[in-house]
Amino acid sequence: VTADRRSAAIVGLGLIGGSLARDLAARGIRVLGFDNDPATLSAATAAGVVPLDATLAGVDEADVVIVATPVSAIGSVLGTIAPMIGRASLVTDVGSTKRSANAAAAALGGGIGERFVGSHPMAGDHRTGWSAARRDLFAGADVYLCPTETTSAQTLERARGFWSELEARPRIITAEEHDALMARASHLPHVASAAIALALETAGVNVSQLGSGGRDVVRIAGGSADLWADIAIENGDELLRALAGVPGELERFREALAARDRDQLRALFARARQWVNPDARA
Amino acid sequence: VTADRRSAAIVGLGLIGGSLARDLAARGIRVLGFDNDPATLSAATAAGVVPLDATLAGVDEADVVIVATPVSAIGSVLGTIAPMIGRASLVTDVGSTKRSANAAAAALGGGIGERFVGSHPMAGDHRTGWSAARRDLFAGADVYLCPTETTSAQTLERARGFWSELEARPRIITAEEHDALMARASHLPHVASAAIALALETAGVNVSQLGSGGRDVVRIAGGSADLWADIAIENGDELLRALAGVPGELERFREALAARDRDQLRALFARARQWVNPDARA
Repeated sequence: VTADRRSAAIVGLGLIGGSLARDLAARGIRVLGFDNDPATLSAATAAGVVPLDATLAGVDEADVVIVATPVSAIGSVLGTIAPMIGRASLVTDVGSTKRSANAAAAALGGGIGERFVGSHPMAGDHRTGWSAARRDLFAGADVYLCPTETTSAQTLERARGFWSELEARPRIITAEEHDALMARASHLPHVASAAIALALETAGVNVSQLGSGGRDVVRIAGGSADLWADIAIENGDELLRALAGVPGELERFREALAARDRDQLRALFARARQWVNPDARA
Repeated sequence: VTADRRSAAIVGLGLIGGSLARDLAARGIRVLGFDNDPATLSAATAAGVVPLDATLAGVDEADVVIVATPVSAIGSVLGTIAPMIGRASLVTDVGSTKRSANAAAAALGGGIGERFVGSHPMAGDHRTGWSAARRDLFAGADVYLCPTETTSAQTLERARGFWSELEARPRIITAEEHDALMARASHLPHVASAAIALALETAGVNVSQLGSGGRDVVRIAGGSADLWADIAIENGDELLRALAGVPGELERFREALAARDRDQLRALFARARQWVNPDARA
């Protein structure tokens, strides 16, 4: 740290960027920020964030730069900041897919190539935007760190320290492993939740008629359509592979039910229960 | 009420029966109870429930009798208590499907025929059993009341008063309407959640790798396999009809994704979001 006071620049002040801004400010770090949405930027400014304009001039003052935009914008933001990363010892993003941002950063080369590592904090909410941002969103959460071929060892250590300071748990994996895992552990449940919501809408059910369990199942389908369309497209191949497994499992239940095969239904529910809750008795 | 102190008998002291026991005891009502599981019955006894044995002798002392067993056992329990409902002005069950219990009660005729009305409180938890039972589980919850063809008007009023006293919101519908609605609003999300859990298990994902959204989606699949096998079988026809809508919705997402059609994906996610959260901006 070369300045009197550490500083961080955050591009994109939604749920993740905004929560980072709150966490960092609470630790005495000066936060510079930008958001495309003027209302968001002004709310963040009112909360103490030093506003940047769309040129991102001033980002060179930051020790760490975090790109917290939708995944489709990360490559372009990295291109904008590449010539002015200044003294920053860490540039990272927080996107839900990692291959494309990593490829963009590695292609830029130069200082940013060495100082960039992709991050994906496994923290979120069905609510979105600055107004949903809050402190300690990352405490206890896994954060995947995905180095590129040009990331320096020092940068990786810096990223590990950055997230550990927010009480998150850094885990290092390749961008390819990350995206394949997320297609299954995150993107598949999201698409399935949205498909169930649409099936219920088509069946004439009102969301207020759901019990607590049904509400849990469709909750994440309340997330941003733009963000999720981006994520699904970015991780299309892996997500298609993951989704291919769902219809067959639904069909098992349908067959057991059509045959009124209670033992088979019970076995299917028991296997699901065991997976969801490994400590439970079946 | 004809006695010095009101009393209720509860057959089945799991999550729902146990929570009723706690709520009623807290209101000064003497609670008689039975459970097939000796450990459950002894835990309930230690908490102040007056234990009945398997013959249910003593149930005639109760002003209200609640059958809180799995749905497959309700008909048989109603048969056992029919000759000894004594002074009870209300006999009800709390099963998640209503047609079969209602048919069983109406077929018994006599006193129980008039004094029975089916109840289904829309309150639950992925945890099960006496240990998960708690006070105020029903506060603010909808409770469907399904009269049979023999239910008296007085019984229906009594049931409405019973649930209102627990701060639940009674809603009167037919057993047929209830079961069709639940197939969609409750049983479909449960089966879909279990199918997603099995797809994730098959894909080699560990539940600890899910984010908060993914965990929400599979949470109810952690519920009792026995209970849900019963419910699914009981409501088989309606559930099969409801489930038939899901593969087509998944296929819409798959097609949009295969075509990398961002606009179509966004439209699908936006429609799901709008249904889940009618007050949100798309």
